[in-house]
Amino acid sequence: MHTLRFTAQTSSNGVVERDFLVGEIPGVLWSPASGPDRAPLVLLGHGGGRTSKAPGMTGRAHRLVTDCGFSVAAIDAPGHGGRPRTATDEREIAAMQQAMTAGEPVGSIVVPYNADIAERAVPEWQATLDALQELPEIGAGPVGYFGLNMGTAIGVPLTAVEPRITAAVLGIFWYDESLAETARRITVPIEFVLQWDDENIPRESGLALFDAFSSKEKSLHANSGAHKEVPRFEVDSAVRFFARHLGGTVGASI
Amino acid sequence: MHTLRFTAQTSSNGVVERDFLVGEIPGVLWSPASGPDRAPLVLLGHGGGRTSKAPGMTGRAHRLVTDCGFSVAAIDAPGHGGRPRTATDEREIAAMQQAMTAGEPVGSIVVPYNADIAERAVPEWQATLDALQELPEIGAGPVGYFGLNMGTAIGVPLTAVEPRITAAVLGIFWYDESLAETARRITVPIEFVLQWDDENIPRESGLALFDAFSSKEKSLHANSGAHKEVPRFEVDSAVRFFARHLGGTVGASI
Repeated sequence: MHTLRFTAQTSSNGVVERDFLVGEIPGVLWSPASGPDRAPLVLLGHGGGRTSKAPGMTGRAHRLVTDCGFSVAAIDAPGHGGRPRTATDEREIAAMQQAMTAGEPVGSIVVPYNADIAERAVPEWQATLDALQELPEIGAGPVGYFGLNMGTAIGVPLTAVEPRITAAVLGIFWYDESLAETARRITVPIEFVLQWDDENIPRESGLALFDAFSSKEKSLHANSGAHKEVPRFEVDSAVRFFARHLGGTVGASI
Repeated sequence: MHTLRFTAQTSSNGVVERDFLVGEIPGVLWSPASGPDRAPLVLLGHGGGRTSKAPGMTGRAHRLVTDCGFSVAAIDAPGHGGRPRTATDEREIAAMQQAMTAGEPVGSIVVPYNADIAERAVPEWQATLDALQELPEIGAGPVGYFGLNMGTAIGVPLTAVEPRITAAVLGIFWYDESLAETARRITVPIEFVLQWDDENIPRESGLALFDAFSSKEKSLHANSGAHKEVPRFEVDSAVRFFARHLGGTVGASI
């Protein structure tokens, strides 16, 4: 088991941001500057081609820290950020870029490629969670997961095998029989985001993936607009979802 | 044009509740005890067989008044509460009760019957809105509409013909070609609530009604659970929806 090693620290607007390594896995931990007290932890999964420090990630992390007092952690997915790429990574990234340049559908490339990334990413998330829970300010408290797009391709198998995750916000991904089979093993509360006019993911495909979860409590949020037009208020909604399910107080700003 | 006549007043938890009559139409107006200052107005439509003062109505009204400082109004639908029933009311209510007793589907009775009620209710709502806007504490400010079940059967044609309504929360109703045709004329922001496991309304029917709205901004909230199990957090979401679209400050409690 690897311990977590902090490598850098900055602070802004009441949020401390610390870069870390767990073995070779680079990540970021956001915490209240006031010092968390065994607060709930939310794991953030980034989208394909992004990293832990994409603006959307930092924005979500700040909201969860500021509004709920939670700790928030992210790690760079395999082949992402500065991480080494496998032959599969190189081949699939090239195929995706070719399809996008040609204006062809990318689902048939993204779905199996993200499944391959997820196989590598799930044990990394579990090792990271082990190491995070060794920190005195985190401990063995409630854990949530929040990730759309590739963050869902990783989040579904992670949530299915990881009993420490007790609530998850997922979405913006294709139905696939293997992924749906995994989703059927999930019973924790789920909020699932879908774009009603997604030009990449057919509406029926997203609805079928939402339908697959066995969770007694699940909510679909389907918004008008294209693939990349998920409304900002879905972050507000996710913050409230985690406040409901992980505990904690929601601040006045939402 | 009828003026609005107050007939009773009570007050609890910072909310003043005033019964009123507009002609023969009985209604309720909820306002901040601190005195509203041309605040936005939300119209609440009740469900079939209910009245303006059903517990769910009062609960929603208090949330909108307390959290946003809005004024909130409801009227009893034709044939509801103490209002006279037509021969159609008597016949359709008997048919519904018979179907429910026999455990038969009620959609084929509810849809045309609620369309008949809506034809009578829409001009009543418009007369009520005229009278409410004559009140100095309301005036010609922004107006929202919030109604599920029969409140949607009435709310769809009302929102379609009433340009003063600029945002609406609707849902829990069947697709019907005539209702969908009316929904297609609506372009204001919509939040639409649907129960994923509704035993009365087929999933595809609810999804098709949501799809019909022409609104550039529309959100579907589909929750697991049966027809009558709409989660309480959908009221929180509706409050935030109106705060976003009508203006006003959302308080700390949500």
